[in-house]
Amino acid sequence: MKRILSKDLKNHIGETILIKGYIHQKRIMGSINFILLRDKDGIVQIVVKDKKEISKIKDTMDESVIEVIGDCIKEDRSVNGVEIHNPKIKIISKVKSPLKIEINKPIINANIDTILDNRAIVLRSLQQRSIFKIQSTMANAYRDYCLSLGATEIFVPTIVGNATEGGSELFKIKYYDKAAYLAQSAQLYKQTMVAIYEKVFSIAHSYRAEKFGTSRHTSEFIQYEWEMGFIDSYKDIINFGINVIKYIKDKVEENNKEDLSILKKELPLLPSDIPVIKLSEALDLIFQERGIDHRGQGDLNPEDEKMICEISKDKYGSDLIVITHYPTSKRAFYTMPDPKNPEETLSFDFILRGEEIVSGSQRIHDYELLKEAIIKKGLDPNDFENFLEIFKFGMPEEGGLGMGLERLTQQFLSLQNIREATLFPRDVKRLTP
Amino acid sequence: MKRILSKDLKNHIGETILIKGYIHQKRIMGSINFILLRDKDGIVQIVVKDKKEISKIKDTMDESVIEVIGDCIKEDRSVNGVEIHNPKIKIISKVKSPLKIEINKPIINANIDTILDNRAIVLRSLQQRSIFKIQSTMANAYRDYCLSLGATEIFVPTIVGNATEGGSELFKIKYYDKAAYLAQSAQLYKQTMVAIYEKVFSIAHSYRAEKFGTSRHTSEFIQYEWEMGFIDSYKDIINFGINVIKYIKDKVEENNKEDLSILKKELPLLPSDIPVIKLSEALDLIFQERGIDHRGQGDLNPEDEKMICEISKDKYGSDLIVITHYPTSKRAFYTMPDPKNPEETLSFDFILRGEEIVSGSQRIHDYELLKEAIIKKGLDPNDFENFLEIFKFGMPEEGGLGMGLERLTQQFLSLQNIREATLFPRDVKRLTP
Repeated sequence: MKRILSKDLKNHIGETILIKGYIHQKRIMGSINFILLRDKDGIVQIVVKDKKEISKIKDTMDESVIEVIGDCIKEDRSVNGVEIHNPKIKIISKVKSPLKIEINKPIINANIDTILDNRAIVLRSLQQRSIFKIQSTMANAYRDYCLSLGATEIFVPTIVGNATEGGSELFKIKYYDKAAYLAQSAQLYKQTMVAIYEKVFSIAHSYRAEKFGTSRHTSEFIQYEWEMGFIDSYKDIINFGINVIKYIKDKVEENNKEDLSILKKELPLLPSDIPVIKLSEALDLIFQERGIDHRGQGDLNPEDEKMICEISKDKYGSDLIVITHYPTSKRAFYTMPDPKNPEETLSFDFILRGEEIVSGSQRIHDYELLKEAIIKKGLDPNDFENFLEIFKFGMPEEGGLGMGLERLTQQFLSLQNIREATLFPRDVKRLTP
Repeated sequence: MKRILSKDLKNHIGETILIKGYIHQKRIMGSINFILLRDKDGIVQIVVKDKKEISKIKDTMDESVIEVIGDCIKEDRSVNGVEIHNPKIKIISKVKSPLKIEINKPIINANIDTILDNRAIVLRSLQQRSIFKIQSTMANAYRDYCLSLGATEIFVPTIVGNATEGGSELFKIKYYDKAAYLAQSAQLYKQTMVAIYEKVFSIAHSYRAEKFGTSRHTSEFIQYEWEMGFIDSYKDIINFGINVIKYIKDKVEENNKEDLSILKKELPLLPSDIPVIKLSEALDLIFQERGIDHRGQGDLNPEDEKMICEISKDKYGSDLIVITHYPTSKRAFYTMPDPKNPEETLSFDFILRGEEIVSGSQRIHDYELLKEAIIKKGLDPNDFENFLEIFKFGMPEEGGLGMGLERLTQQFLSLQNIREATLFPRDVKRLTP
């Protein structure tokens, strides 16, 4: 007998069917009893009246795996519009110890340690599983959009010989008889590959040895990487970023209606014109609208990012705002200075619902200028030999961006902590499961 | 003026057009001169007669980036069926040092150290870039196929607290004040997630501290991971594996015709019936056909794998053969023993063109049996607490497989060394670029 999934039961009304899944919830009331059976896509209610069947499930704990053969009956008051009557139940896998957490109650934005200490179980809850179903859609939407532009996907190593970004916060590996590090970004590799495929993307692991357990940072995260050559200006990259985020939103709306309704979440407002303003204009706006004077600080701190998004929502009806022209002193050495004012760069951040989710820029593509930029930052060009090498052999104007998969998931779904958007987070406290 | 890509020039015959790309090759012959310009998808020939234009390019080295405005002329003898006449050339990025390797000559199956010592440049050759265009197609075909089955993509960490496989060959990380390791496989995570989404896939980084630089192993590689629950038998997983490989082959044939012709490679023969035989039958066949008696060795060594594929090609017209029922003593503790003969497992390897590319099995899904299996292997159940935990809370019959992205690329394209199918390989000798 072929198994039917809960979501397809409505096409089998009046038939005797086989379903398989987990006991999501039970109500043992005596003569009439109910099981909610959960499978990969949904839930169905089983009505148990037969004494022999009741005795099978009476002491069987939630999350046990069962197979049920029964009659599929139309029942408008029930989930999926059906119910299973006259069930014959077979227990496939019996739970022996009670669950440490009630996963058939809504679990969302709960205490993060409770969620993570019981990760494997908590993920079975309807809310938590909806988060990562949406994340799967997001990742695939990202790739589909890149492929539709004729881009090539690349797979880059996570073990590196030295730090591309020139930063600290590196994890050190014992690599045979050498020292190596976990990559902070795919920068070197995507810039190398832009000379070959012109448009490249990667879904890459990035690592930061963050010492503080903030709600916005973990030690290992996934970056959507994008790099494109033969650009006319840094605006080409901003447009890519805006369009791909809109595409991802469309795909989530299309594929995850039920998940959004389980989560009771609204996706961000993304109007046709997303505001793009300079950092100096953003700081002016914050001063004008809020009376807080951070002009001259040359960056947005987390509170500024929240304020500028609130202002953007009021003024432009957009949950997303793009901030450009960060100071040269604040950005990585490879960022292209604005020819009109070399103190500023052709760089940008995307701020969504108060949180930075994208960082990008046009890059310096000339060998000599890049070497100079390294020296200006007080770094040693010899440490960047592999990086510099790629600019010796013909490079077009180019640029790119990185977008955090978990950050984007967090902001799309208004989750309090990035760990709730990370399947198995790694941080200063947490190394398992 | 909008830039036209070389592959689209045939739609612009008779027009004045703008092209951008790299000087792939030059022939300076005096009064009539030729440039082959390479862009992301192809090559076009530019005919240069004007003295001023000749002087611009005369001393400009290969791989310099140029922009050309010229007349697009029909020319059947030329690549793409067009040529660019009366060009006005602008040099965007000038190469200053000569290339260390001639990349406008075919580079394939060349000396691997020469290829890798000049990786960023060698990848610009038509052959090398075709390899990774095909790999991009393969990765996306894999995902499309998984999604079409209703599977969910998961993102798993690479930093782990202990070894799932219980093996050696681990890379150690200094993780804050703790020791951690780079993951050998996504086993724990995909089995956890099968209880949530029933069918899950991941494109995961795996690490092995291989001490020897064989042509088949690197230290960091990409695994296509697959795990599915509610299976009827291990054969469901074998069928998935066969079908996804066929789907990948179809997509490469569809999308990478030109790359295959540049590489002069034939994809593997995959008839509608792929042979699936037991290990004992495979060893019998090798004995019968080749007179080599490895019966009783309980495994296939690399030479056996080559022989069994040759036999498979002769007997079944298939470059792929599936070998099942490896001995319990040779497989990981979580492998399901065959109920008919517990000395053998419900496991399998796929051998393609003489090389193992897939390994998989049905898993033990019962907590007590799994604990027993750990002890039987001489391991300590306390070391596998996180792993065991997931079987306490209801698990269906399930199984999965892992397939090496680089291995599959290597065998699809008959490359001598797995490093040629790895963008930036990591091994005992190589940590950069």
